[in-house]
Amino acid sequence: MSTIDNTLTSFINIASDSDFSIHNLPYGIFSDTKSGKHRAGVAIGEHVLDLSVLETEGLLSLNGGPYFNQSTLNAFIDSGRDNWTQARQTIQTLLSSDNATLRDNADLQKKALFKQADVTMHLPVRVPGFTDFYSSKEHATNVGTMFRDPNNALLPNWNEMPVGYNGRASTVIVSGTDIVRPSGQLKPNPDDRPIFSACKRLDFELETAFVVGKGNHIGQPIAVDDASDHIFGMVLLNDWSARDIQKWEYVPLGPFNAKTFASEVSPWIITMDALAPFKTACPAQEPKPLAYLNEKSSDNSFDIHLSVELLPKDAEKATVICETNFKYMYWSMAQQLTHHTITGCKVEVGDMMGSGTISGPTPDSYGSMLEIAWNATKPVTLKGGETRSFIEDGDTVIMKGYSEKDGIRVGFGEVRGKILPALSFDFDK
Amino acid sequence: MSTIDNTLTSFINIASDSDFSIHNLPYGIFSDTKSGKHRAGVAIGEHVLDLSVLETEGLLSLNGGPYFNQSTLNAFIDSGRDNWTQARQTIQTLLSSDNATLRDNADLQKKALFKQADVTMHLPVRVPGFTDFYSSKEHATNVGTMFRDPNNALLPNWNEMPVGYNGRASTVIVSGTDIVRPSGQLKPNPDDRPIFSACKRLDFELETAFVVGKGNHIGQPIAVDDASDHIFGMVLLNDWSARDIQKWEYVPLGPFNAKTFASEVSPWIITMDALAPFKTACPAQEPKPLAYLNEKSSDNSFDIHLSVELLPKDAEKATVICETNFKYMYWSMAQQLTHHTITGCKVEVGDMMGSGTISGPTPDSYGSMLEIAWNATKPVTLKGGETRSFIEDGDTVIMKGYSEKDGIRVGFGEVRGKILPALSFDFDK
Repeated sequence: MSTIDNTLTSFINIASDSDFSIHNLPYGIFSDTKSGKHRAGVAIGEHVLDLSVLETEGLLSLNGGPYFNQSTLNAFIDSGRDNWTQARQTIQTLLSSDNATLRDNADLQKKALFKQADVTMHLPVRVPGFTDFYSSKEHATNVGTMFRDPNNALLPNWNEMPVGYNGRASTVIVSGTDIVRPSGQLKPNPDDRPIFSACKRLDFELETAFVVGKGNHIGQPIAVDDASDHIFGMVLLNDWSARDIQKWEYVPLGPFNAKTFASEVSPWIITMDALAPFKTACPAQEPKPLAYLNEKSSDNSFDIHLSVELLPKDAEKATVICETNFKYMYWSMAQQLTHHTITGCKVEVGDMMGSGTISGPTPDSYGSMLEIAWNATKPVTLKGGETRSFIEDGDTVIMKGYSEKDGIRVGFGEVRGKILPALSFDFDK
Repeated sequence: MSTIDNTLTSFINIASDSDFSIHNLPYGIFSDTKSGKHRAGVAIGEHVLDLSVLETEGLLSLNGGPYFNQSTLNAFIDSGRDNWTQARQTIQTLLSSDNATLRDNADLQKKALFKQADVTMHLPVRVPGFTDFYSSKEHATNVGTMFRDPNNALLPNWNEMPVGYNGRASTVIVSGTDIVRPSGQLKPNPDDRPIFSACKRLDFELETAFVVGKGNHIGQPIAVDDASDHIFGMVLLNDWSARDIQKWEYVPLGPFNAKTFASEVSPWIITMDALAPFKTACPAQEPKPLAYLNEKSSDNSFDIHLSVELLPKDAEKATVICETNFKYMYWSMAQQLTHHTITGCKVEVGDMMGSGTISGPTPDSYGSMLEIAWNATKPVTLKGGETRSFIEDGDTVIMKGYSEKDGIRVGFGEVRGKILPALSFDFDK
């Protein structure tokens, strides 16, 4: 599965820099304006292939199906790995240059192929649980340096476990959803009481999230060498954060209001099968993890190039403000999932598990505004000359990601979110 | 709604100390051994009234229904307050002494009435989100005294907001489910690395949880004076906790593995309509909360007597180890819900929001073993002479709760959970 057949081509015209090559085939939920119906599709070049049509036409018959004339992918994912494999093979064959079924059937193409520009993407799965980890050593070190103690930036548990916390599944939203600037409690002056205010230090967090493909039973942890069997795929995640709200609220029970207003994901789930050729090692782990976290395989990470762009309201062009890579993550997804379940916690199909902010070793690879502008001491200059320490009203943040090797590209597309002004509140009415 | 008609009686024989008087009528999901089918019922004395039968017989016709031949109450709750009111009135009438419909129809009684002892109770709702607050001042002070600084036991944000954190909805389980002792990372010796071990400081937390009855839209906070419209009812909650795992993991992102293995709830949802006669004031709040948390009504709490019993494996009798009251809670449920949504977080029908451990002012009213045995320095002596600092294998913890006034009792029944020995792990295989 991890070798690339780079002779494989599609009859559909796909630009060489497209994220959605025939080697990718990510799953999403889309609707067109005509029917408005939500159903499953696969991205191919600039198109979406409607999987519900393939099912109806008898071209994609999976055990226990049909699965794709539905508004989420949960049932398909829950149907198991054999179906994942069969679906991928069938779809890849149908899209390949040397298969006539779809290639030579203009009527079928008309029914089954949509331009991505003409459809609306929706959240690909119902998300029963959302968890966020904190697994970039560079990010944890940067935050610890700014907020706690530069000489002891990493807390002692950080090197021993993939630290994580429960997020809020109800506010996992799909790319393109505008976000109202949150209001809440801030404490700008340490000597005064807190105030109620719109957030003044609004930030993004560049993350990926994996989608759980197979659950466990309560009380039965997932062994670390089995964990990859439980992962279906990955998305990009912008875990929007209100830094000033966070700073005041987070001791002792962790971030809450600062993180629960919006966790925005890219619409296409890139399967682990598509990412397999881009496996690479995690950074060396020192000390060696406790046995329950100790993986046999060292190829437990992925080489995924990631970037963040910022587009102010009236700007002509976005400015790239971060370029980094998923491979910098210290803890692997398998370790995260095993740690999550080690006390018996149940995970479910569709659960999303965020990586935590992915920062690289250099300032241009930091994955949050907090780090890039170093707690507002080093504002970033954008293309039009504007500067930013945090995100302002009207700003759009765009995150992108792709893997590339031997001329083959497998990409995530983007997660894009725009900030709307805060609500006005009148508490005297 | 808040006056009690204590002339109202049922034709069903109900003991005077029953939690399930005709004034209560809590909702749950049950199955009998014959059909195995999960459907909704109401507890009345020692019986369950099958609401799906009432619907089938045309005795309970709600707008948009039927609702009760289902395995969760979410659809009924989501149908709105008019239906809650109508269902309560209809069921109360059908069960009253002076109504002949059910009273004089032996066939209907046979179909619709089951002994509670003969049925199995299930989780009453699908729980999309689980949140835990920390709203007992006594509990927060006790924990802060033991773990941080006796002179500054309460952290500065505690008096300003109902501090809370996201829990794990997937492991909300119903009373009667046994719990495997969790294993995970502990750090018994500060100078050594952590170890992997079964939890040695397993604890309960006496809580209630409210069930969200009406959601909001993302980005649209719920105003504090509207919050009670969004609450359907309450349950008892034992938020099982692994204190040693918690201590090592919780800085900086809050409790995670220590709390995600089991949050156990009582099976009957007591409606806010049934609890209305027992309204009382929260403790005085000083300083006065910020405007967004400032309630017009001062009757924002409830007088609910709560207790915890511990029953060791081979003991004949349980020992009451805590008696307290919900009215000690500093922050109201309305304030919790408003704070939860103030930055725009969406809440959904069926969400459960835990109160946090409910401790009273005296040691016999503390709501966790950690506090009762004061961090293992004051072990509790049980009836048989055994002592406990934390919960041991085979122990059963039973929590009960009820309100009583003018000879009328409205109770929760119980949440009961037993601890099974930890799994054994073999990481060398």
